[in-house]
Amino acid sequence: MPVATLDSSRIAALTELGQQLRVDAVRAAAAAGSGHPTSAMSAADLMAVLLANHLHYDFAASRNPGNDHLIFSKGHASPLLYAMYVAAGAISDDELLSFREAGSRLEGHPTPQLPWVDVATGSLGQGLPIGVGLALTGRDLDRLGYRVWVLCGDGELAEGSMWEAFEHAGHEELGALTAIVDVNRLGQTGPTRHGWDTAAYARRIAAFGWHTIEIDGHDIGQIDRALAEAETTGAPTAILARTRKGKGVAAVEDAEGAHGKPLPDEADAIAELGGQRSLRIEVAAPSVIAQPRLPEVGRLVLPTYPEGEAVATRTGFGEALTALGGARSDVVVLDGDVGDSTRAGYFRDAHPERFFECYIAEQQLVAAAVGMQVQGWIPYVCTFAAFLSRAADFLRMAAVSGAHLCVVGSHAGVSIGRDGPSQMGLGDVAFFRALWRSTVLCPCDANQAAWLTAAMADRGGISYLRTTRGETPVLYPEGEHFPIGGSKILRSSPGDELTLVAAGVTVPEAITAADRLAEDGIAARVIDLYSVKPVDVATLQQAAADTGCLLTVEDHWPQGGIGDAVAEAVGHSTAVPRLGRLGVLALPGSGSPAEQLQHAGIDAAAIADAARGMLES
Amino acid sequence: MPVATLDSSRIAALTELGQQLRVDAVRAAAAAGSGHPTSAMSAADLMAVLLANHLHYDFAASRNPGNDHLIFSKGHASPLLYAMYVAAGAISDDELLSFREAGSRLEGHPTPQLPWVDVATGSLGQGLPIGVGLALTGRDLDRLGYRVWVLCGDGELAEGSMWEAFEHAGHEELGALTAIVDVNRLGQTGPTRHGWDTAAYARRIAAFGWHTIEIDGHDIGQIDRALAEAETTGAPTAILARTRKGKGVAAVEDAEGAHGKPLPDEADAIAELGGQRSLRIEVAAPSVIAQPRLPEVGRLVLPTYPEGEAVATRTGFGEALTALGGARSDVVVLDGDVGDSTRAGYFRDAHPERFFECYIAEQQLVAAAVGMQVQGWIPYVCTFAAFLSRAADFLRMAAVSGAHLCVVGSHAGVSIGRDGPSQMGLGDVAFFRALWRSTVLCPCDANQAAWLTAAMADRGGISYLRTTRGETPVLYPEGEHFPIGGSKILRSSPGDELTLVAAGVTVPEAITAADRLAEDGIAARVIDLYSVKPVDVATLQQAAADTGCLLTVEDHWPQGGIGDAVAEAVGHSTAVPRLGRLGVLALPGSGSPAEQLQHAGIDAAAIADAARGMLES
Repeated sequence: MPVATLDSSRIAALTELGQQLRVDAVRAAAAAGSGHPTSAMSAADLMAVLLANHLHYDFAASRNPGNDHLIFSKGHASPLLYAMYVAAGAISDDELLSFREAGSRLEGHPTPQLPWVDVATGSLGQGLPIGVGLALTGRDLDRLGYRVWVLCGDGELAEGSMWEAFEHAGHEELGALTAIVDVNRLGQTGPTRHGWDTAAYARRIAAFGWHTIEIDGHDIGQIDRALAEAETTGAPTAILARTRKGKGVAAVEDAEGAHGKPLPDEADAIAELGGQRSLRIEVAAPSVIAQPRLPEVGRLVLPTYPEGEAVATRTGFGEALTALGGARSDVVVLDGDVGDSTRAGYFRDAHPERFFECYIAEQQLVAAAVGMQVQGWIPYVCTFAAFLSRAADFLRMAAVSGAHLCVVGSHAGVSIGRDGPSQMGLGDVAFFRALWRSTVLCPCDANQAAWLTAAMADRGGISYLRTTRGETPVLYPEGEHFPIGGSKILRSSPGDELTLVAAGVTVPEAITAADRLAEDGIAARVIDLYSVKPVDVATLQQAAADTGCLLTVEDHWPQGGIGDAVAEAVGHSTAVPRLGRLGVLALPGSGSPAEQLQHAGIDAAAIADAARGMLES
Repeated sequence: MPVATLDSSRIAALTELGQQLRVDAVRAAAAAGSGHPTSAMSAADLMAVLLANHLHYDFAASRNPGNDHLIFSKGHASPLLYAMYVAAGAISDDELLSFREAGSRLEGHPTPQLPWVDVATGSLGQGLPIGVGLALTGRDLDRLGYRVWVLCGDGELAEGSMWEAFEHAGHEELGALTAIVDVNRLGQTGPTRHGWDTAAYARRIAAFGWHTIEIDGHDIGQIDRALAEAETTGAPTAILARTRKGKGVAAVEDAEGAHGKPLPDEADAIAELGGQRSLRIEVAAPSVIAQPRLPEVGRLVLPTYPEGEAVATRTGFGEALTALGGARSDVVVLDGDVGDSTRAGYFRDAHPERFFECYIAEQQLVAAAVGMQVQGWIPYVCTFAAFLSRAADFLRMAAVSGAHLCVVGSHAGVSIGRDGPSQMGLGDVAFFRALWRSTVLCPCDANQAAWLTAAMADRGGISYLRTTRGETPVLYPEGEHFPIGGSKILRSSPGDELTLVAAGVTVPEAITAADRLAEDGIAARVIDLYSVKPVDVATLQQAAADTGCLLTVEDHWPQGGIGDAVAEAVGHSTAVPRLGRLGVLALPGSGSPAEQLQHAGIDAAAIADAARGMLES
């Protein structure tokens, strides 16, 4: 699109539209009695011009994969987004006034309850990184010409995740991506670091390989030219727009203390903004009218491992993932420069066109995957279990988005050995259990890991697979199935006096412990709890009824892991069993895997001792 | 210090020292059979010159507050750090060879088990942000002239947290801080994005207000001049040193596939490096020989709130924190541009010289606090509970460091109301429970919040205080004590048929539920479990013995919170009670606080219903 100059009547019309968006944002917040109208008002002119002149979007067909994407990284400006939907005819004025009511789709911060919202925002610094993922998807996977527009705040440029995004997009030269930064100079508690110094932001962002444009964010002509320039420059573009928070209403304009609350007088404000309007915009259709892509799904032949061999679960995962990538065209893999360790590297070597190296930037790693799943791709996100905590807030928000992510954390637990606690995932199960609608899987052998790797693809929500570094014995025969929500009983007899519940590396330890207990005449049931969430309540309750005494053993802190999961499963039985738990009690140091398990008190000897102690007490 | 030129004999001596550091790193890794010698070898010349010519450190008095600080942000280069300790005479050659053995202080990644290590590293991108905190401390709190040297990898420059640090230090003009970036161009799986393009890094870092110097990282003269320049420039300085991974040993030098493993032939490598040496360096003493600072501690008069009034726990926290700041000179407060909401703003207004605004950058927020506690300050770190998850990995590593942090998360739970799920901390208790040696506190009224705020100061480790947005009734009289590890029984009678266990906003709901149950002739005990970790095992076990039936109620996902804490406490009783739990089961939307509690099924009506259900089943 050539960079044309708008005529005065068009400028007047867009000015009117901007005022309408302000009025509607003020009205929505007034109706709700809360919200962030002033943060909406600063960006109203930017969004008016985008909506009317640059966005390509079919509001009647939000699932058209050729649609542009518009993400409000500053999610608290939601009244502006909803006002845009009114202007586009997507929602009614009545619905606008349901803002923040219980049951309304128009939540305090946008969520995909609305069909035009790709992802939930409201935790700052996430929209742009996800936008990078969408721009990557558009270019490298969908191969459709859609653009990705992200409205950012100036305050959120303090978030490191934004700079992971600038680096990723700059390096990838994602010309379809535009960040529109609403530089209104005021955060919650006062001025930002750089105020209206748009040059300070431009210098930083340009250094990361972006094209930058500094404009007056209330000058319709400048806005339009900048958006047009962004469409043609070929580089990711940041428009740094100097704006005034609360623009248009003197009582709040550029005023401290006016953040996050309705305007003091709705009627006065609307009058000052020129009254209510009812302009409707015909938003341009996307150039591509496409159907949602149907993946090619062929026959999956998973790798198998002979019983008794020693194979790491991460290897079972990596080989299964590679097979899955061969069978399904919609599987994509992302890794944070540890693919040699996670074994995502196997997939990289086999399917390089669907592998995305995200380097050591775990927030961007998860965000890119969230962007990809918006378009129906099935991303596997891989790094060390410990380092997934770097992206905890992105995973939390991905759950709010209802995102479908397959997350794989390797090197979990003390059993990694000598690298020490910085590399050990010891709270990962606790974190993933406490995510909305999550699945948590802890395989103990390579066949199980392979099976669960494939099962995650169709699970929905956020699934977490916990893999381990060292080789563990293959316990299950080829062809064994491991349904999510199930478990396996590995030792059982009518006279079982207690039940050992283990997962991952503690399963072989529990088996050895059961064998030693058997030598003392104590029959112990052993349950492999590979599915920690959902958990196999029936099997656990049966074990509780049969043995009255359960001992959980996990390579994890004692909090939030399988001990807690088992307690939850059996707690509401009418005959509640006694529960013992073994987990990592002391801060580990370095040491061999066997030394680590011993030091943590979760090896076979410790299990057998604890079992005897429970039966004697 | 003037920038002088080294004479050739000095250059030769420093070259020898660099080779010694390489040889010792190779030896340590060979002895361990693991480790990252090649990542140590690239930085050996940089560290040789630093140690011999620029570091001011008394290894015999690591607690001298005037010492410089040296942080290995690239913690995997630990064999280099330990080789430096040998050269400085701080550890013996024998101890060097204990690297990565069980029980050795020389762990795979450095931890404060060693007195000269301030903080644990090994999760990349953390050392520089913590260094920013130390440099702030040196200038604004300790007011001592120490310098902060941080050895960074090039790979970790992809971490957003590094850019939060560059922004923070640049804006604060922290001239005492030097980042020495070992640009060896190779990550784990292959080349970094920018390879040896040090200019690409320099452009980015300079844009954030830093002084930058690009050098050949194996040229002793260039290194020395750069370090001297860093000491005099007055701005934070980044030295971008082009280096070769595995430098000095042809078999691994600049080779892919040589990451994170011992050299293929130790003897050949040592020979190629010119053999073993035993140089000892007299490290310069700090200019200030100071004693650890003793805080002024005066009489603390906590705010009090009359029973029956409605006051938010965040207000009780904020006012108590301000009082604490008046009574103790060592309390400092950091917030992420939400001080008006967290109520840290009260402290900011009263004690601005000990308040640090960290803007919307939660990783840097926590990292700065970690730096401050290294020097004995007691930091209170404040933001929304939800956004603390942004810093989850920093908190995880702070626990490994044994750091003493008081962390306060406001706006926890669905009871915040209309802002929606992005702003609600619903997994925060799960996360903090599963941290090493943590304390988790959930006050229900303002007097309790005030008391616990003060109690955290002396607790040690990571303490977490969960505060809530809305006003809740003051339940406790002035002067009531709330020891950590305790609980309060709010309703009790000899005929109690079940026990309701609540914390925070669910306490008044549980009381109302108990009153309604009483109307039906059901006596319910009510326990206020304000201390979730450590938990009051005795009181819970007594309730289990007395009533046989416990129902937990929490404004949190059902996983990882007080339901799990109670299950853990009573699970190993000989008479295990039945356990019911209420938590947030559905993804919340917007709504009023009362609507949210109702929708989540944790209000008084839901509690009473669940209690009746448990007694009937």
